[in-house]
This record gives sequence, structure tokens and C-alpha cells, in this order.
Amino acid sequence: MKLPGQEEFDVYSAHENVTTGELDSGPGSGPGPDGSSDTGVPKDPLLFIQLNELLGWPQALEWRETGRWVLFEEKLEMGGGRWSAPHVPTLALPSLQKLRSLLMEGLVLLDCPAQSLLELVEQVTRVESLSPELRGQLQSLLLQRPQHLIQTTRTRPCWGSARPREASRDEEALLKEQRLNSLRQKLPPGAEAGAVLAGELGFLAQPLGAFVRLRDPVVLGPITEVPLPSRFFCLLLGPPTLGRSYHEMGRAMAVLLSDPQFQWSVRRACNLYDLLAALDAFLEEVTVLPPGRWDPTARIPPPKCLPSQHKRLPSQMQEVKGPSARRCGSPAEDRHGHPPQAPSPELQRMGRLFGGLVQDVRRKALWYPSDFLDALHPQCFSAVLYIYLATITNAITFGGLLGEATDGAQGVLESFLGTAVAGAAFCLMAGQPLTILSSTGPVLVFERLLFSFSRDYSLDYLPFRLWVGIWVATFCLVLVATEASVLVRYFTRFTEEGFCALISLIFIYDAVGKMLSLTRAYPIQRPGSPAYGCFCQYPDPAGNESQWTRTKPKDRDDLLSTHVKTSRFFPSVVRKVLSDFSSVLAILLGCGLDAFLGLATPKLTVPREFKPTLPGRDWLVSPFGTNPWWLSVAAALPALLLSILIFMDQQITAVILNRAEYRLRKGAGFHLDLFCVALLLLLTSALGLPWYVSATVISLAHMDSLRRESRACALGEPPSFLGIREQRLTGLVVFILTGISIFLAPILKFIPMPVLYGIFLYMGVAAISSIQFTKRVQLLLMPAKHQPDLLLLRHVPLSRVHLFTAIQLACLGLLWIIKSTPAAIIFPIMLLGLVGVRKALEWVFSPQELLWLDELMPEKEGSTPEKGLEPEYSFSGSDSEDSELMYQPKAPEINISVN
Amino acid sequence: MKLPGQEEFDVYSAHENVTTGELDSGPGSGPGPDGSSDTGVPKDPLLFIQLNELLGWPQALEWRETGRWVLFEEKLEMGGGRWSAPHVPTLALPSLQKLRSLLMEGLVLLDCPAQSLLELVEQVTRVESLSPELRGQLQSLLLQRPQHLIQTTRTRPCWGSARPREASRDEEALLKEQRLNSLRQKLPPGAEAGAVLAGELGFLAQPLGAFVRLRDPVVLGPITEVPLPSRFFCLLLGPPTLGRSYHEMGRAMAVLLSDPQFQWSVRRACNLYDLLAALDAFLEEVTVLPPGRWDPTARIPPPKCLPSQHKRLPSQMQEVKGPSARRCGSPAEDRHGHPPQAPSPELQRMGRLFGGLVQDVRRKALWYPSDFLDALHPQCFSAVLYIYLATITNAITFGGLLGEATDGAQGVLESFLGTAVAGAAFCLMAGQPLTILSSTGPVLVFERLLFSFSRDYSLDYLPFRLWVGIWVATFCLVLVATEASVLVRYFTRFTEEGFCALISLIFIYDAVGKMLSLTRAYPIQRPGSPAYGCFCQYPDPAGNESQWTRTKPKDRDDLLSTHVKTSRFFPSVVRKVLSDFSSVLAILLGCGLDAFLGLATPKLTVPREFKPTLPGRDWLVSPFGTNPWWLSVAAALPALLLSILIFMDQQITAVILNRAEYRLRKGAGFHLDLFCVALLLLLTSALGLPWYVSATVISLAHMDSLRRESRACALGEPPSFLGIREQRLTGLVVFILTGISIFLAPILKFIPMPVLYGIFLYMGVAAISSIQFTKRVQLLLMPAKHQPDLLLLRHVPLSRVHLFTAIQLACLGLLWIIKSTPAAIIFPIMLLGLVGVRKALEWVFSPQELLWLDELMPEKEGSTPEKGLEPEYSFSGSDSEDSELMYQPKAPEINISVN
Repeated sequence: MKLPGQEEFDVYSAHENVTTGELDSGPGSGPGPDGSSDTGVPKDPLLFIQLNELLGWPQALEWRETGRWVLFEEKLEMGGGRWSAPHVPTLALPSLQKLRSLLMEGLVLLDCPAQSLLELVEQVTRVESLSPELRGQLQSLLLQRPQHLIQTTRTRPCWGSARPREASRDEEALLKEQRLNSLRQKLPPGAEAGAVLAGELGFLAQPLGAFVRLRDPVVLGPITEVPLPSRFFCLLLGPPTLGRSYHEMGRAMAVLLSDPQFQWSVRRACNLYDLLAALDAFLEEVTVLPPGRWDPTARIPPPKCLPSQHKRLPSQMQEVKGPSARRCGSPAEDRHGHPPQAPSPELQRMGRLFGGLVQDVRRKALWYPSDFLDALHPQCFSAVLYIYLATITNAITFGGLLGEATDGAQGVLESFLGTAVAGAAFCLMAGQPLTILSSTGPVLVFERLLFSFSRDYSLDYLPFRLWVGIWVATFCLVLVATEASVLVRYFTRFTEEGFCALISLIFIYDAVGKMLSLTRAYPIQRPGSPAYGCFCQYPDPAGNESQWTRTKPKDRDDLLSTHVKTSRFFPSVVRKVLSDFSSVLAILLGCGLDAFLGLATPKLTVPREFKPTLPGRDWLVSPFGTNPWWLSVAAALPALLLSILIFMDQQITAVILNRAEYRLRKGAGFHLDLFCVALLLLLTSALGLPWYVSATVISLAHMDSLRRESRACALGEPPSFLGIREQRLTGLVVFILTGISIFLAPILKFIPMPVLYGIFLYMGVAAISSIQFTKRVQLLLMPAKHQPDLLLLRHVPLSRVHLFTAIQLACLGLLWIIKSTPAAIIFPIMLLGLVGVRKALEWVFSPQELLWLDELMPEKEGSTPEKGLEPEYSFSGSDSEDSELMYQPKAPEINISVN
Repeated sequence: MKLPGQEEFDVYSAHENVTTGELDSGPGSGPGPDGSSDTGVPKDPLLFIQLNELLGWPQALEWRETGRWVLFEEKLEMGGGRWSAPHVPTLALPSLQKLRSLLMEGLVLLDCPAQSLLELVEQVTRVESLSPELRGQLQSLLLQRPQHLIQTTRTRPCWGSARPREASRDEEALLKEQRLNSLRQKLPPGAEAGAVLAGELGFLAQPLGAFVRLRDPVVLGPITEVPLPSRFFCLLLGPPTLGRSYHEMGRAMAVLLSDPQFQWSVRRACNLYDLLAALDAFLEEVTVLPPGRWDPTARIPPPKCLPSQHKRLPSQMQEVKGPSARRCGSPAEDRHGHPPQAPSPELQRMGRLFGGLVQDVRRKALWYPSDFLDALHPQCFSAVLYIYLATITNAITFGGLLGEATDGAQGVLESFLGTAVAGAAFCLMAGQPLTILSSTGPVLVFERLLFSFSRDYSLDYLPFRLWVGIWVATFCLVLVATEASVLVRYFTRFTEEGFCALISLIFIYDAVGKMLSLTRAYPIQRPGSPAYGCFCQYPDPAGNESQWTRTKPKDRDDLLSTHVKTSRFFPSVVRKVLSDFSSVLAILLGCGLDAFLGLATPKLTVPREFKPTLPGRDWLVSPFGTNPWWLSVAAALPALLLSILIFMDQQITAVILNRAEYRLRKGAGFHLDLFCVALLLLLTSALGLPWYVSATVISLAHMDSLRRESRACALGEPPSFLGIREQRLTGLVVFILTGISIFLAPILKFIPMPVLYGIFLYMGVAAISSIQFTKRVQLLLMPAKHQPDLLLLRHVPLSRVHLFTAIQLACLGLLWIIKSTPAAIIFPIMLLGLVGVRKALEWVFSPQELLWLDELMPEKEGSTPEKGLEPEYSFSGSDSEDSELMYQPKAPEINISVN
């Protein structure tokens, strides 16, 4: 069958040949408003594809939009009058084959110069097989306005264009509808449309297929539901057949057009054979599910991350790849289960005294002005509010607990003041100004031990602590001078998890212990207990404690409130607020319940005026107090331990915050950060304020609230991550607000201590739940067949996994025993000992196993983990590398420190 | 390329032609030990397919089993040394095409008469292209023993056959391993094997493909990991190529063989072209996923139910279909969201007085002897234990609550006695002996109202109640005589859900109310409350009540313990026991906690001897007591209300229990059941025992514990349901045991009442959570894009769904208001009014909408719901009917009555 269009096709292909030179540079296929990527290479525009079906043959012919595609398929649910959720499109193989033969026999117009729907329809219907009469009928049919289900921003969907016949009348109404369409706001500027028209038409004797690529994208009137310029137009009509073959062929065409590789090829196709070759290339790469084992009508929800297109695309295409999406990680990421710790240039040893620090200052100085200018974005306001609330929650919780642990040597007032001063100073000076300082878990644990020690030996605590601080600052300066931060690469996941697990367990143990001790102080009355009998007690107007009550398990509130975010109820904004402020809400709820029931729980102790919590002391700590002079030298010993702890906590956090996946542009400053921490330690020790270190979770929340994301997002596609607004202003404002909040302190005395214990318990549970070690401990309890399909289980025998877990458990047990002895204070050294244990594990486990279970340690300083190391059986590895990622979205690896 | 095998192929196909007549009857392809289905048509045996790959070229050639298939694919995880979880196999299209051309060029032997591996290998290697030397090499290679990962019943997997060279030595060890293989126990008797051998072999110049169907299945020595006779053997070897093409071709062959239709065709194929046609038919039906939107390496877990094979199979194949599996429901089921209520013959009106009852008795009398013989199965023992525990839990809970509601007119002792007597009698006489009688929720609610009424008017309760019982029995007999049970078809889901929701809400309200009233009786001490001040109270040795405690929220235990079953921890047996006995465990836990903390909670009141709970009354209730004579007539009025309630509760439950999906063979007895209930009502009224009706949940649990299931289940496939052991003995034994348990009653006085309230609350919450109405109420709170992909939402506009839900909510509100007025006792009439409201809804909603939201009411008595009614747009309906079932396993629709 020779169609008249075939000549035209030859003409156009000749025309195309002229512009072949433009193929690689991309925009040869039209001057459409292309979005340009950062690299300056123009990207192919996003393609919105719509399938209009011809329904109602023979009585009431009408076009109706029944499907649409950007990344995934949305299907019109006729009965429900709504669009389905986006899902992975599934096709039948025969429909692809039928489409192929229809295209082969049909009309293919590449770079058609039509400027309107009318011109296009005329071109498409110039086919030999049609009589003039039929052609007229067909043309008027193609010009009929299709019915769209327009989902406007209002809640009720409405059917576009009441009656197709009155097309000329409501032209304006249509445009208004199209403009109101909420879909349009989701498509990026420069997006193009592809229209597929398919259906069965009784008066046709032969199938009629046409594929048109327009030279200049044109808005084809009412054909598409959004007024986008159309680049592709495909017509698939034929006499009625069995089944729904034209519908399925239309879907197949739409799915093909939504495939990035096919789209890339067809935008550059010179002739029919290029088009067919692109279709064949698509067929080469499809995934086939056997019919008996998979229901072809099942809707597959969009995977958490898309497969990498890198292997599929020709090299020039990788530069100009399609819509940005959250793709699966690189194989190197996959094998580790988390991205490899970047051997970042900031961690290269300079080899001279303070070399790293100087380098850091130089690097950051360049960005200093932009650190303030970059904050001029409305997003920063919400970030400030969010982080401010999180910061004061932290200040209250840690301040309250610290006050209790140190008998009021520090308290909530000191916590607020210290947070404000240290935080603001850090934001102004530090290498990574997104870091939020907090009096974190490990330091709290150490301070508690230090206080018991000084009480046991009747020392004057604050002067002793001042000397510890002076020594710690000195040691930290030595660490900065010797560029010790580069050693951080020896802290593998094994060390991090040991560190985190120990601190979390201490949190949980302490919180439960506090609760139980409260039950002793405020006993449950029971028959037969000594207290049961005769009580006479009147309310004590001065004290805030009373008998006859038991503490409520308030921690449940916290645990429940964090489940909220993933629920399906309420709009996402409400859920986000509820989950983001769950700690604040839990505190408020706890306080409210306490006040409502009138429970006489112990409350937070807050001084009535702005003066130190410890009565009678000045803000400035006297250097000796009642201590002997030699204690200032002896303080070097605990200071050494605290230095180890601070170094570990600070640097592990810093590594996490500066990971490559956050795409920070301004670089890190490991040495500078440690330098700042040392200086602030000195300051806070002198003023008797808590000690501050970088806090992982809250800093990550800070970064998260400053994410820059692509505005336009295709249906079913998560918005893509562009980077973070790196600046110093949000942190600074947060800490200024925290400073102002000191005057709110009197309100805080209504907070019951059990509420703080609840938050403390929650922090511990959340931190310990988030580490891989916990997952592996759970594996110990699971029968093999119920175990989740973890990537590491595919590659390491279960017995070896269990052995690794058992060793970690043993280490943790040992640490716990040490923590429970009088030698508890030396636990930082033992934490450091984990590095040695990890090193020794290299004799027990093969490098492959360690690669999966942990990560590799550098062989000698400066070398990076071996990149070439492959799994043992390369033949089995190639097809299973990243499949797990489809089901297990990568959670941010956080919570190394509990804060 | 003409291969020597080609002649043999002709020979065999000629031989096959002789037996073509046997094609339809199935077993023509071999005298293997076929499992025969119930219908007597022999089924094709189950096929276990194994892929052995040739690895280690060129240094250390060895065969290794790398995949296996029954219904789904299991992949050897080399590194992890374990089998993957079963998953849906995914293929690449090119591998299927390459396989096709290799088969076309290769050797196809159908009905090969080889009797051993040696003979088979000789036949397969008689190919022209091989030199004698190569042939020898190849033969010895094919005879090498492959490595299997044998997972024995011991926990540690071991690699089969240490070194392939020593094949002759450890022949016995191999057989032992094969026999120990836990996989073998999962395969049904008569299963056959298919072996696929694939790999790259450097010394081959050309690809070598061979497909063999053995005439008689033969155990091919060590080739397969289980010693099954092999029916198919496929060899795919060739020179080294790029990629893993032979591995993928081997997988493609295995997946083909695991497809029921391909397997059916290839068992009956006469020649190469039949084989290729079967492959092409497979390709016609595969589901294709586009490459850019789906990671081909992702493992898809087995769907909850398999797609129906009925459309795919030729008619004779539907009789002899492959391994039984839980297939997706029929379209009629799907459209309703639950199976259509069977218009069962038992519900056809006979048209004469007691006609239905007589019919019921006739029908059941036939089965009576078998009702005892069928109980001779060990499964019945565990069923008895399970249902016994559930029954006494029910007896304690309802007995305890009834005793409290009626001020001791009934109590736990009456509850035990009544349950035993009524239950045993019902099991002996009833139409559906699997039914467990219980004093269910609606009756409990009514009895509470009746008691308040009689207390308000100072009536003698038990004699009044006796007359109510007499009248109810009379009314029920009238209902039996007039065959009123056929009216049950007017109770649609709308009515059922209204009934269930009201009762559940009363349960929840009562339970919370009881708890709160306890807090008043046992107040929480707070500062400023009047009780705060001076107390002097010593323990009261006689009473079991005390001050100073508050009730614990014990209900949490119940809710938590039911989550246990779906967790991944512990072997499934442990989890099943924990979840099945969660109520018992919750009671024990509650009692233990109560005893441990020594709380002075109110306890269950239990008489010290075997005598009625109400002091001073005889077992037989006197007919008048202190009541005036006319009250015996006036009792007819409340009796009418109770009759409505009992009729609704009994018949809705009976319909649910006798649903077609439970595959009951002995038929139902709606009229006979109601007759028995009426007689037992008379008896229990006379003895002052609680009233009993069929209980939905516990009866369903009874049926579930008596499921007959196919023993053999393929990997990843749930066992298929064959029916239920219908008999009278388990119920009888349960109630005899309940009767004996009366002597355990004194122990019950340790049960605190709050524990019972907790169970009560749990029952209410569980019942109300299980109905579709609740799901639709949740939809009101969800933004459209977060709504689950419910089938009804695809077909009914959201606004109409919301309107239907709002009407139901309004009805429920009205019922609740009536329930709260002094006219509360008339609520059964209002429940019946729901049927009228539902009828009126036919003016508001279209039949299509009602079909999705509810179900259709019969137009006039005797007619069944229109079967021909199709969704409005038939073109959109055909491909979306049953896809939802893949993601939403159908939960049993229960809990219409709370019991």
C-alpha cells in the first residue's frame, strides 16, 4: 500500500537530513522554550502525552480523553469520574506489534510544518484510501472537541466542554478551563504535548495510522486538556475489531512516547526506519511478566526510585536526559547500602601545623558574603520557625535533665543562654553554618558521670569543670593543629553504630529508671503495702510535689504522634505540621493532661529571675573555688576522655552533614568546626553553661527545611532535589530567638518532668531503631523465610551476618558493663577501642563480607576504599545489584548521636 | 542447518500421531502417578523446574543449580548461600526470541524413550556438528554431578556433592541428601521435574539446543535436587557470548515450562511447530513493562491471588488445570466487593405451612450419620481446644457483663450452664451444626434495656422475662411456619452495617462509660479535690473494693496482642497461638498485672456453690412471681421487639455462615436453625439463663479451624481450600467441656471487671473496624489523592460515595438518639426501618451505584439480583475488574454481630 503521505515523508526526511548536524546539540528539533540545565546543555522538553479515544460508535461518536502520561500512566475512571493514581503502565506484546505494523504501513510525517489543528488534520487525512466524502467526514470528526475530565483546583471535577457540537461557542470557556487545570501548574515551563488519537470507525475499510512530528510545536486547540504546544500527533483508526485493539495500540504509542529513550530517538529520527528502530530498541529492553503468574490488569504503583537510564542512553543523551527524577543510586552506593563516605578534599591532610584550618578559613571566606545573601528566600522563614521550635524543645529537655543530673549546677536557664550564645557564635564562624549546636547525648552522659565523680570526692563542681573545659579546648586545638580530623575515615559504620547504640541504651535505661524511681517516690497505693493505712497530709503550698499519684506513661504520646506523617488522613500540610512539631505537641499534650487531671507530678525547676540556677554563684565561674590548686592539672585526665568523646561526636556528625548526597556547594570545614567547638567549650565552661557539640538530627532537619527542589514535578514523580540553601542567617536568627526566649522561662515551670523523660525515652528508642545493627539483631529472631529481602543477605551467608551481629552485641555488652562500674568515666576510650575491634575483624571476615556488613577501612592513610572490589561471583551479581532499592527506599542514615 | 536429531524428531512425531486420540483425556503423555481431582478427570502432574548453569569456563567447569520454579521463581543467592524468596519471574524479551530461534534450529525430541541419564545424554549429543572427540567431552560434562544448595530440615544449608569428580563415590550420600531435602516434602506425590541445562562452552563452534520430552518420566540421577522423575530436559549450550544470554535463555525456558498453558500445550505437542506455537501463544499473553519506568531486576513478590487461567485455557484444559492455587474471584464477586449472597435453594419459599422446616429436616436427616463419622480426624481435636477456649472466654465476658447489667439476675454461672445446655442441644438438632451459640451483643443490649424497664416499673424481672421468652418463641415459630426466613434477602449490606455499627457503638460507649464510672467510684486523688485531705481507711477483709487506685487501660493489651500474627518475628506456629488465644492471654495478663500490682479493682462476682447467682431463687423460674397476671399478656409487646432482633441477628449470621465461598456440602437449614433457637429460648427463659443466638465470629472461627486444605503446596503458593469438615461432634464436645467447666467457676472470681470491659471495648472496636462503612467514613477525611485504590471508587463518583455514607451516618445518628431516649427499647423496629430506608435509596442512586456501594435488592420476592447489569461504560470496565484484588486480599466479611 502506497500512501500519498509517503512522498511527503521522503521530502521531510530529506529536509531533516540537512539539519542532521544539529542532532547532538539537541535543539535541532524545534525552537520550543527549552528548560536549560545547569550545565548549559539544553534538555529535551518534558512531554505530556494524552490519549483521546473515539467512543460511542455508531450512534454518538465522541472523543474522550481516557489516559495521560508523563512518567507514569493515569487512567480515566469513567464510573468514578476521576483520574486513577499514577501507576506503571503495562502493555500487551501484541498491541506493540500491531502498532509497529500500522506505523510501517501508515503515514509518517517528520517535521511537519502545520501551524494549526486544521492544517494538521488536512495533512493527515490526505490518504489515497479515503474517498473525498470519507475524508470530509473524518476531518470534521478529528476537529470535534474531545471531552476532558478537568480537575481544577476546586474540589469537584467537571467534564470539559458540555457538547462537542457547540465547539465554536464556548471557545473562551475552554481556554479558561484549560488554564484552571491544576495539571498545568505541575508541568514545567517549556513542556510539550503529544496527542494520541485512537479508536474504531465503522466507515473505514482499512486501518489508518499516522505519526506526525511537528516542526514547531503548536497548540492544537482543544485536543489536549492543557494548552501546551504539541510536538507529536498520532492517529490510530480502523474498522471495528474484536477486543479493544485500537485502545491498546493507543496506549502502546503513548507509553512509547513517555519512554525517555524512545522520545530521544524519535525527536531525532530522520525517517520511518529510525522510528521503527526506536520501537525495536524499546522492545529489546522491556521487562516481560509471564501471563500465568501476573494479572496483566494489576496496577503497579510507581517504584520508589526509577531505574538508572545511564546504561540505556547514548552518550550524548546522558547530558540531555529527560525529566529529572529520583533515580536509583549508583552501583557503588548500592553495594554499600548507603553512599560511600566521600573521600572529600576537605579531609585531605595538608601536612603542616594548622594546615587544614587555614585551608578551611580560606575556602569559607570566599563564600562569606553569599552566606547572607543566599538567605533571602521565603523558605528561610519557615525554616527558622521550625528549627527554633526544635531548638527550644532540645534546650528545655536537655536543660531540664542536665539540671537534675547536676543538682542544679546547670539548668534550663543556662541551657537557653548557652544554646543562644554558642549557637549564634558557631553560625557566624563555623565551616558548616547549617550545623545546629546542641548539648547532645554523649556529652550529657559524660557530664552526669563527671558530676557524680566530683560529688563523690567532694569537689567544687563548676571550678573543676572549668579546668576540664580549659584542657579539652587545649586538646582540641592540638587535634586541629595536627589535622587529626582526617582520622575520621577510620570510623566505619561499626564504630558509629556502637557509639549510637550505647548512648541510646543509656537514654532508654535512664528514662525508664527515672520513671521507676518516681513510682518509688510517688508510690502506687496497694493493700498490704506499708503506706496503706492512715495518711494525713495537706497540700504543701511551697513544694510542687505530692503523694498518691503515679506517673503516666506519657512516652506513648510521643511514639504515637510520630506515626502521623505516614497516615493517609488529612491533607499533607496538616500531617506535616503534626509530625514536625510532634515533640512540641507531646509536651503541650503532656502538660495539658497533667493540668487537666491536676496530677501532682514533679515539675521543671526554673529560677524566678535571670540569674544562675545554682543559688549564690556569679555568671563567671571562679577558677579555683574551694578546690586545691593541683586539681587544675588533674583535670587534664577527664578532659582527655571528654576530648575523645567530643572529637568522635563532632566529627562523625560533621561527616554525615557534609555527605555528597546533600550536594553542598560551599564545601565543609572539619578543622574549622572543631576549632569553633573548642573555643565555645572554653567560653561555656567559664560561664558555667552546658557544653555544645554539633547535633546530627536537628542539623539534618535544618538542612531538610532548606532543600531546593525542582518546582515542576510530573505526575507520580517525586520532586527532584537540587541542593540546599547554604547560608548563615537562618541559624543566627534561630539562636537570637532562643536568646530572647529566656524571658519565657517562667512559663516552663509548668512542664512536668515525666514529660521530659518521655521525650528522652523516645529519642533513645528512635535512635536505636534507625541503625542497621538493630535490623540485624532482629534477624537473629526471625526464621529465615520471613526475613526481609535485604541486599546484604543476598551476598553474605546468614551465619556470617549473625557472627558479625554477635560480635557487635558482645562489644556493646562490654561497654555496658564498663559503664556500670565505677570506671564508667573511661567509656570514651572504650568507644575508641571499637575502631581497634573493627580493625581486628579483618582477620575474621573477608573484605567482601565487610563491604556488605560495614564498609572498608582505608589500608593506609590517604588511600580510599578499593573501588575495584567486586562480589565473589561476578556472574550472579550483575542482575541483582540495585533491585532491593525498589522496595526499600533509602532512609537517611542519621542518629549517630542522640540529641 | 540440518541436524541428525531432526529425523528422530520426525519419527517421534509420527509415533505421537498414533496417540493423538489420547490428547484430550490427559494421561497420554505418560503413566506417571497422576493425582486425580474430585471430578475423576486426571490432572497434569505438577512440574518442578530446575535450572543448572555451567559455570567456571574455562578453568573449573561445574554445573550449579541457580534457579528453580514451581509457580514462582527462586533464585540462588551465591554470596548469601541461600534461596531467595519466591518471586514473580521477569524476563527480557530478547532472551525469549533467542530461545525461540535456538529451539527452531536445535534438536527436539518428543516422547524420547530414554530410560536413564546416560541414554538421554547419548541421544542429545548425537548432533552432526560435533566431532566424536567433542561429543565425548560433552557427554562426560553432561554426566557431571551439579552442585545443589540443599536446604534440609536442619537450619544450616549445605552444598550438595562436595566435588563433582568423585561422583561415583558418594552416590548414597547424594540420595540421602535428596531425600532429606525439605523441598521434596512440599511437592505433591506424582510431581514431575523439568531440567534446564544452560551455559557457555568454549569448545563449541555453534550453539547447541535440545528440547526433550521423555516418554516415561525418569529420575535423571543427580541432575535435579529432588529425586523426582523428569519429564522434560532442555539443553542450551553455545560458545561464549557477550552478556549472560545462555543464563537468560535458560531462565526463559524454565519460566515457559512453569506456565500452565505452555506446559499443557507442550505435553501434547506433536512436533516442533506445536512447540513454537505454544511459545508464540505465551508471547501473545505476556505483560510488558516499559524499561524506563520499571527496574527489570526488581523482584516482584507473589501476588495475593493468581489471575484466573480460565480465559487462557482451551476448554478441555480447564478440566485438567495445573496446580491448584487461590485464584482471583469471579467477576461477579469482584463487582460486589464480596461474594454475592447466594440465592441458595434453602431460601426458596415452599409455599406451605412449615414447608421450609420440613424440607430442612429432610435434607439434614440424610447427612446425620456422616455428621459424626466425619469428625474422625485429628484436626478436630485442635478445633475443639481452640473453640472451647473461645467459648469460655465468651461465657465469662458476657456472663460477667450480663450479671452486672441485671444486678445478678443472671451471672457467670448461668452463662456457663446456659452455654453448655443450649450449645450442645443446638449442635445435636440444628441445620448448621457448625454454628456456635452465644449470648451475643444485640441480645445483651436488649436484656439490659428490658431489665432497666422492669426495674423502673418495679416488676419481678425473671417471671416477666419468662413470659417475654414464651412470646418470643411463639413469634419465632410463626416466622418458621410462614417461612419468613426467605425475607433475609432484603437485608443488604446497608442494613447489616447499620445493625453492626449501632451495636458496636453501644459496646464502645458502654465500655468507656463503665471505665469512667469506675474512675468516679475509685477516684484519682488530686490536690484540691474534696477527697484530698485526710483519709483513714483500713483494708476491708470482706469486700473486694478499695480506694486510691485507678483502673488501668487494659484494653491496650488486647489491641496490641492482635497485631502479633502479621509480625515477622517468631515461627508462624508461635505467632498463630499468640494471636488465636489473644483474648485468653489478655485476660491472663490483666489478671496477672492486677495481682502483681495488688490493685483493689472490682472483681467478677461468682457464687460459691452451684446455685443461681440471684440469692434465694430456684433454677426453675416461677411463671408469675409477684407480677400481676396481665403482665404475661403485656409481655408480648417487648417480645415482638426481641423477636425482630433475634430474627435479624440469627438470619444475617446464618446467611454469612452458609456463604458459597465456604463450600459447604451438606446444605444449610435456615428454618430449622430458627426453630431450634426458638425452642432454646423457651428453655433458657424457664431456667433463668441467658438467651442464645448464633454468633458470627466464633462460628466462623470454628469453621476456619476445620478447613480442609490441599496438603501439597508449591513454593510461594498458598494452600488451596477444599472445604470444611462439616460435623456435629466438635461443637458437642466443646459444650460438654463448657458444662464441665462450671466447676472451675470459683477461680473466676480473680478476674477484675476492668479486664472484661477491655475485651468488650476491643470487640466493639474490632467489629466497627471491619465494615466497609467505616472505610467509607474514613474516605470523608482523606484528600482524594491519598485515598486507597478501592474498586468502588473507580466506578462511583466520590460525591455519590460521600452522599451514601452521609445517609448511613444520619441513620446511625437517628438510631443513637432513639437509643438514648426512654423509648430505647423500640430500637429493633428502627433497625428494621433501615430496610425501608435502603429501599427508598433506589430513588436517589442508580442501580449501578447501588451495585457497587451495597448490593441490589430483589425486585419482587423470589427474583434474584439482576445478573446482566453491567457498569455504565462497558468499554472501560473490561480491563479493570479484578485488578484491585491483587493488592487488597479479600478479608472475611464478618462481625455483623458482636459476640
